[in-house]
Amino acid sequence: MNNKKMLAFLLSLTLCGTMMSGCGSTSADNNAADNSKAETTTTTSAPAESQAETAPSADTPAETEAVTTEEAETTEAPQADPANDTEEPTSADSRETVYQVALLQSLVQGYYDGIISVDELKEKGDTGLGTFDGVDGEMIVLDGEVYRADENGDITKADGDAMVPFSNVTFFDNDTTLELKDIEDFDALKAELDKITQQNKNMFYVVKVNGTFSHIQARSESKQTRPYKMLNEALAETQKEFEFDDMNGTLVALYCPDYMGGLNTTGWHFHFISEDRTKGGHVLQVSVKEATAEIDMTQGFKMHISDEENFQKMDLAKNVDKEMDSAEGK
Amino acid sequence: MNNKKMLAFLLSLTLCGTMMSGCGSTSADNNAADNSKAETTTTTSAPAESQAETAPSADTPAETEAVTTEEAETTEAPQADPANDTEEPTSADSRETVYQVALLQSLVQGYYDGIISVDELKEKGDTGLGTFDGVDGEMIVLDGEVYRADENGDITKADGDAMVPFSNVTFFDNDTTLELKDIEDFDALKAELDKITQQNKNMFYVVKVNGTFSHIQARSESKQTRPYKMLNEALAETQKEFEFDDMNGTLVALYCPDYMGGLNTTGWHFHFISEDRTKGGHVLQVSVKEATAEIDMTQGFKMHISDEENFQKMDLAKNVDKEMDSAEGK
Repeated sequence: MNNKKMLAFLLSLTLCGTMMSGCGSTSADNNAADNSKAETTTTTSAPAESQAETAPSADTPAETEAVTTEEAETTEAPQADPANDTEEPTSADSRETVYQVALLQSLVQGYYDGIISVDELKEKGDTGLGTFDGVDGEMIVLDGEVYRADENGDITKADGDAMVPFSNVTFFDNDTTLELKDIEDFDALKAELDKITQQNKNMFYVVKVNGTFSHIQARSESKQTRPYKMLNEALAETQKEFEFDDMNGTLVALYCPDYMGGLNTTGWHFHFISEDRTKGGHVLQVSVKEATAEIDMTQGFKMHISDEENFQKMDLAKNVDKEMDSAEGK
Repeated sequence: MNNKKMLAFLLSLTLCGTMMSGCGSTSADNNAADNSKAETTTTTSAPAESQAETAPSADTPAETEAVTTEEAETTEAPQADPANDTEEPTSADSRETVYQVALLQSLVQGYYDGIISVDELKEKGDTGLGTFDGVDGEMIVLDGEVYRADENGDITKADGDAMVPFSNVTFFDNDTTLELKDIEDFDALKAELDKITQQNKNMFYVVKVNGTFSHIQARSESKQTRPYKMLNEALAETQKEFEFDDMNGTLVALYCPDYMGGLNTTGWHFHFISEDRTKGGHVLQVSVKEATAEIDMTQGFKMHISDEENFQKMDLAKNVDKEMDSAEGK
């Protein structure tokens, strides 16, 4: 790590601390169901100076621990030169951003043409989800690798020049760790995660849930042929569903705040990939046996749209909530 | 200009060419009124290879010229290293982004606390608009300088540590030049500019209109006191309006596409600053005597929200369109 990278790392830690410092005093607007069976342990990564303010939510069970796992000196941000900054923004700034290719609304309306390549997407984040040109399967981005779950739920690594019509990725930095056990279904899992997200409900979150899943229902689909239909109609024809039992692997999820309903779906969106990287897809239902959730809270959102003629002609303000919920399996 | 900057400049030109290449073949969805009095001349800045495709809109008057004013060799983008890219994205990527502090919806709901400083804002763009902590006047960003129009429309340069609760800025790169003459009112001006924007209606645009204005009606306001009211209520109490006649200066405007109604106001938002940098404000009405419009089309949008507790508690999905239109003078 050279001096520049060290400075960027310290800035990143400082920003993380700033972001976390509001949590303790924020009242949780918690919609969690009564998950009496579920056990949850919380660990918070935050710089030393914010430790005192980082308290567990009132809803967290008694055995909850808030443990500071990283420490850093408070670093005064250097006065950046605007001219230089256009080429070299702080690492913290670009890491604390959820990057989005196009709108989920453009995908739902049938715009399936790739906008950036997989190699370009990797420059924007190492963790996330999405799909491929022509809706050719489900995308899972994990540890900097871009995977494709085909129509049978079989995983391959995506080619660098494969094109991407829709995706959300970020550079993952764990802010909060939750230990999960015996979570009976999708709603209960979301409720556990929402104990964290609803403390800062206007933030964006990317979450990795790594562990053993007693059951997962997932889906994927085959590449569409032109003329492209609306996504819900396309999926009604080509979607295949599959069930995984007692499988180790990772859920990769995005949480968008309520005000994002014009550009994406609000709330949660989960994809899955098995530990051996052979199976995966878009998650429709899940039961957690035992798993660790890592939660990355970010306060930046960047969207890159297509300049292509047909994209520019679309009525992207049209309400397609019904079609989107159908396509997402909500 | 060193080699790295030269490469970034060439990449920027190449991207500009890619963005413009769709214009000629896109049918304009043009809502322009019949501005028979207005004269308009169009000049397009684009790399040589896209010149053939860059044709004027069918709605543009006969005297329109489409002139290529910059040329560049086609440059193959180097394969970026994802690890490096988090610190050094291409200049083109960060320049072709409209950066937004918070949501206009948070400002309209009365969240007036500054989120980033003026110095930090300057790192995100050199052209744009916004306001200051407590809605302490109107912000005009031009040529890298951040100006404040106080309640009397008098201009001062903003302090670097002044805080910003809402703003939109970009690094301005002119894509299209329009020569304007005798534009009778605000609607007619928007109609002229929409001849360009509606060729790619899902893009973001930042526009500078520099020239002589026969009449401008503008407003600004004094700093609010806590507890903060909704913006439309605050302005109803403290807004002052002023009239400028036969004044030289620059309009700085933002155009947001229709799908952005959840995060900002769709369509146009104009601020003004006089040529001698003594007068300015939020524009309510304008007549153009003779002016040059420079139009920067961008396909990236980045939003940075506040992590502060009260911001996180807001219901930002609440529909405040009526209050927003009232506050913006629409």
